[in-house]
Amino acid sequence: MDFYVVTYVIGWVLQFEAVFLVIPVLVGLGCHEREHALIYLGVALLCLITGTCFKLAKKKKGELYVREGFASVALAWIFLSVFGALPFVLTGEIPSFTNALFETISGFTTTGASILPEVESFSRISLFWRSFTHWLGGMGVFMLILAVLPMLGDHSINLMRAESAGPSVEKLFPKVRDTAMLTYALYVLLTVIGTIALVISGLNLFDSSTLMFGTVGTGGFSVYDDSVVSLTSSQQWIIAVFMTLGAVNYTAYYYLLLRRFRAILNFEEIWVYFGMIAASTLLIAGNVHGLYPTMGETVRHSFFMVTSIMSTSGFATTDFNGWPAFSKSIMLILMLVGGCAGSTAGGFKVARLTILIKAIRKEFRSLIHPEEHKKLYVNREPLSSETLRSVNSFAALYFVTLGISVLLISIGNDFDFMTLFSSASTCMNCVGVAFEKVGYGCNFDIYSGFAKYVLMLDMIAGRLEFFPLLALFFPSCWRKY
Amino acid sequence: MDFYVVTYVIGWVLQFEAVFLVIPVLVGLGCHEREHALIYLGVALLCLITGTCFKLAKKKKGELYVREGFASVALAWIFLSVFGALPFVLTGEIPSFTNALFETISGFTTTGASILPEVESFSRISLFWRSFTHWLGGMGVFMLILAVLPMLGDHSINLMRAESAGPSVEKLFPKVRDTAMLTYALYVLLTVIGTIALVISGLNLFDSSTLMFGTVGTGGFSVYDDSVVSLTSSQQWIIAVFMTLGAVNYTAYYYLLLRRFRAILNFEEIWVYFGMIAASTLLIAGNVHGLYPTMGETVRHSFFMVTSIMSTSGFATTDFNGWPAFSKSIMLILMLVGGCAGSTAGGFKVARLTILIKAIRKEFRSLIHPEEHKKLYVNREPLSSETLRSVNSFAALYFVTLGISVLLISIGNDFDFMTLFSSASTCMNCVGVAFEKVGYGCNFDIYSGFAKYVLMLDMIAGRLEFFPLLALFFPSCWRKY
Repeated sequence: MDFYVVTYVIGWVLQFEAVFLVIPVLVGLGCHEREHALIYLGVALLCLITGTCFKLAKKKKGELYVREGFASVALAWIFLSVFGALPFVLTGEIPSFTNALFETISGFTTTGASILPEVESFSRISLFWRSFTHWLGGMGVFMLILAVLPMLGDHSINLMRAESAGPSVEKLFPKVRDTAMLTYALYVLLTVIGTIALVISGLNLFDSSTLMFGTVGTGGFSVYDDSVVSLTSSQQWIIAVFMTLGAVNYTAYYYLLLRRFRAILNFEEIWVYFGMIAASTLLIAGNVHGLYPTMGETVRHSFFMVTSIMSTSGFATTDFNGWPAFSKSIMLILMLVGGCAGSTAGGFKVARLTILIKAIRKEFRSLIHPEEHKKLYVNREPLSSETLRSVNSFAALYFVTLGISVLLISIGNDFDFMTLFSSASTCMNCVGVAFEKVGYGCNFDIYSGFAKYVLMLDMIAGRLEFFPLLALFFPSCWRKY
Repeated sequence: MDFYVVTYVIGWVLQFEAVFLVIPVLVGLGCHEREHALIYLGVALLCLITGTCFKLAKKKKGELYVREGFASVALAWIFLSVFGALPFVLTGEIPSFTNALFETISGFTTTGASILPEVESFSRISLFWRSFTHWLGGMGVFMLILAVLPMLGDHSINLMRAESAGPSVEKLFPKVRDTAMLTYALYVLLTVIGTIALVISGLNLFDSSTLMFGTVGTGGFSVYDDSVVSLTSSQQWIIAVFMTLGAVNYTAYYYLLLRRFRAILNFEEIWVYFGMIAASTLLIAGNVHGLYPTMGETVRHSFFMVTSIMSTSGFATTDFNGWPAFSKSIMLILMLVGGCAGSTAGGFKVARLTILIKAIRKEFRSLIHPEEHKKLYVNREPLSSETLRSVNSFAALYFVTLGISVLLISIGNDFDFMTLFSSASTCMNCVGVAFEKVGYGCNFDIYSGFAKYVLMLDMIAGRLEFFPLLALFFPSCWRKY
């Protein structure tokens, strides 16, 4: 491991965080929250100074190989969250550092799990920063940095690989920077359109933009105590649609821009994704229709909750804890699957599920028809055995981590199994809502400090797809060259 | 698919079941239950006649390829269970055919999940048959048939493959029949020693032998209403030890016979298995020690429940529903893992877990050290990429089936998630005990008929490790040559 490169990258990220902290400062000044704005400005300065010191440590030009990519992305996300949590502590709005860190990690990882019983008494500036972390973390901090700066040469693809979601990171353009720029341009576009839609529907600009950060970033932090229950039905529809769009593989939008409609038709992941949303909405609507007065309301709540869980956002329009076991089972399965690869969504990812199911089919066929030798095709292209192997390892790691997490958070937290299981999986899949004791209207403050740190690690592990965080615990990764 | 071969194999199995049904007839006569014995004799005759008719259908000599092996084993297990359920219905002891079939499938698959509120009012003959199904199904019906008869030539290994558990079926001897004979000899030996130990401890011969069928077969049906709570502590220790031994890979016993101690030392699966039992016992004992008066009792209950769950037997010495969440989480994880491959145990199998963890490690190493090219070693021998692929497909199929099962049994059964999840996994892993509404002292009769059939399919799918049962649903498998 080249420590200098890692320190240098972390330095860059902290400097960037300083810049992003200026935005809430401006919001605070606009909302006449001068004292809070000063605190945010102070933290921004602290970030800038620490980041600059970190960057000074770099003495020689080093290369950014996979292990440096993994370690620096994992560490950078931790540093990012620690500094991001400081304003909450210093303003006194979340006095406990553990809780502030939980809230910030939940923000950056777009989980949206909260330890707060209520948020409406919060200052505007803190509400803005809380939701803004969703937006920054959603598409990725490094993706943004790479879009703006030509940082560390060609190997900087390793940073993007470590941060991006999915079985294989597609470079849309030969240059990393072009790919990052286009992705971010699409991300900004979606956010702006969504905000305008909410403003037109009658919401003020502050609420519209902060809600849209959590929507397009598939995060789930709201600015209201009741999530989005009190919004009008048209506003809920807007959020539902943009959550759905946020969890679509961004490569599809790129194809759409280039009018490559055949490529979109062959894009299996997005069709499976839309198919699962449609099927689940129908099944749940059929199951819960007695609970709501009209058919329209039934469909709206069903679709909203399905897409909120599957896009791993975690907004809520209704208390789904009272839904029948069948609907809750569907939601739990959707929670584990998550959204598309190459999007802001968390979870196992639809792409991996598709590959696994195809692999089972192929394995079975080769057992009963040993004379046949068929290849695995995804999106009409042959799947490399390396990708299949990495998907399999990911699946194994996913379930092992989930099991260990449930075990660890059950220490001293003598809750029912649904609470424990859904807490671990909602954090690991960056969803944010869970069931029973951490269901609608509840929060994660019921857990012990130890369990909170386990859940924080789960969120980062899930957001970075395990391997980068794992690198920090592998001694051979720290070995010097 | 060669239908004649499949029919022929099913015919053989039914003829064999007729022979096995004679044993409870003799027990019944010995216990002065003449009327019941006549019913069992009638069912035996029916089996014999049906089996003979099935065998007559075979006109030409066909070959037993993998797909015939899969289909005939899956169908034979279903036929076996349908005929095995008849005595319970005809004696009126389990009037509903669905319930009788559930109990019989639970028996043959060594699950031990019951729909009966109590069993002590049962006739001796039915209690004997119920536990005897554990013993027959434990090591496998085909294994027994192959041990006795040279049935269908060299390809009969495909029957053993379809029925036996584990990532790769090891032939200890070049001839299938020799392997089957040695395995069964060891199985009989364990059962006899266990029965003698129980008799010496003061239990009568009937109780000792029936309990030992469920112990060495890792089934879990008891002859008492309270499982084995009312037995003495030394009797509980005997059962615990023989459950543990029953779920050990039988290849280890073979090495022991040949004094190949180095091979045993290198046998990773059994050491991981014993290590997991020891670690879990310690953790649970530390967690529940306040619930029992003495340290000895704490350790006994902890060890008994750990080995009962991990060997997938399902006997109980205590009501573990009242244990803290941490202990229950450990038990749930052990339930999913199960015992060793090549034993009577169900579950994912320790061998597969070991391979998966090693594969994750290797995948991670090859990511951060791309220059290295290390192979995967299991038991100091290189692991074939085919075995790894099949383990991966098995894992995917395992979790997909578990998810679908939970979803299906939740239809109309509006229970808490722990009940639903533990019901599906206890059946799929052939354990038998579960939590909450189907925990200690409860039974599976709370489920609707549809859910019971789903759970029955889970039991057979788990026992035959998915692929054989799946073959019945694949159209291409039924295609004629």
